[in-house]
Amino acid sequence: MKKIATVVTSGYEDSELTSPKHALESAGNVVDIIESSADEVIKGEHGDTQKVDLSIDDAKFDDYDALLLPGGGSPDALRVDERYVNFIKKFLMANKPVFAICHGPQFFIQTGLTNELKLTAYTTIRYDLFYAGAEVLDKSVVVDKKHNLVTSRTPDDLADFNREMINLLK
Amino acid sequence: MKKIATVVTSGYEDSELTSPKHALESAGNVVDIIESSADEVIKGEHGDTQKVDLSIDDAKFDDYDALLLPGGGSPDALRVDERYVNFIKKFLMANKPVFAICHGPQFFIQTGLTNELKLTAYTTIRYDLFYAGAEVLDKSVVVDKKHNLVTSRTPDDLADFNREMINLLK
Repeated sequence: MKKIATVVTSGYEDSELTSPKHALESAGNVVDIIESSADEVIKGEHGDTQKVDLSIDDAKFDDYDALLLPGGGSPDALRVDERYVNFIKKFLMANKPVFAICHGPQFFIQTGLTNELKLTAYTTIRYDLFYAGAEVLDKSVVVDKKHNLVTSRTPDDLADFNREMINLLK
Repeated sequence: MKKIATVVTSGYEDSELTSPKHALESAGNVVDIIESSADEVIKGEHGDTQKVDLSIDDAKFDDYDALLLPGGGSPDALRVDERYVNFIKKFLMANKPVFAICHGPQFFIQTGLTNELKLTAYTTIRYDLFYAGAEVLDKSVVVDKKHNLVTSRTPDDLADFNREMINLLK
């Protein structure tokens, strides 16, 4: 059993939270949803709702084995706030597994560590990530073994994303 | 009387379209809303609606004196499509006036010309623009005289944005 932090707010792409969360939990892991206030409800862009488990102010990096970053409007809404960026940066610095899909990799740009990473992402932000120094690929899933990073482009890639995420946690 | 093209789709930040459009029209100019299909209705993230004047397939660069790029979710939704990016690139290449606010400057990253520009933008994408080579400032309005570019950060900057936009068109 491993503990996975997911940093997400309203506007997330529904399936990019629900599908990886289900895959992780079905494999016996625990997923905590982290946002500003525990017990608040966040809403996906297509109507899914989720309860926040933990405030970012109470989330302890050492409690988690991995990090999940769903896409949609959520990453750009949260990367304005240094608390989330600093939390995510700790996973990258420590090479703990990070799973990011669609707009999820937008967070990396604010960490200043993007030029170390090999990844894919949603079409539009691949340009942003290229300029920030990443090695950017156009594939359904990219596994950066050096940094324990799994990335995908869109909900269509979820089967590959989930599989590689579970493989990396083994 | 000058003709201003505005490239915008649903999800735009309402006031970042309506306020500059009103300022430009009040000063005697014409503003055309350009999106995929003429006569379709686009909707702002807070409920404003606008009719599309012209399809991007019919929009002719030579017909316009300037370009307006409102923010919100619109720029990231449209920069996936080369037709919009190529249209915007022509204004930058020709040094025709370009007015971009909030997430509007996201379009520039896809043009490959960002490293020529001095600008501001919404907080989160200032990082993306920095890595893409822009000279990035944190000011209510930035006028890049060399490139006839006026940029602002948020709806709070609209008074300054509108004033500099009208000044540049004189």
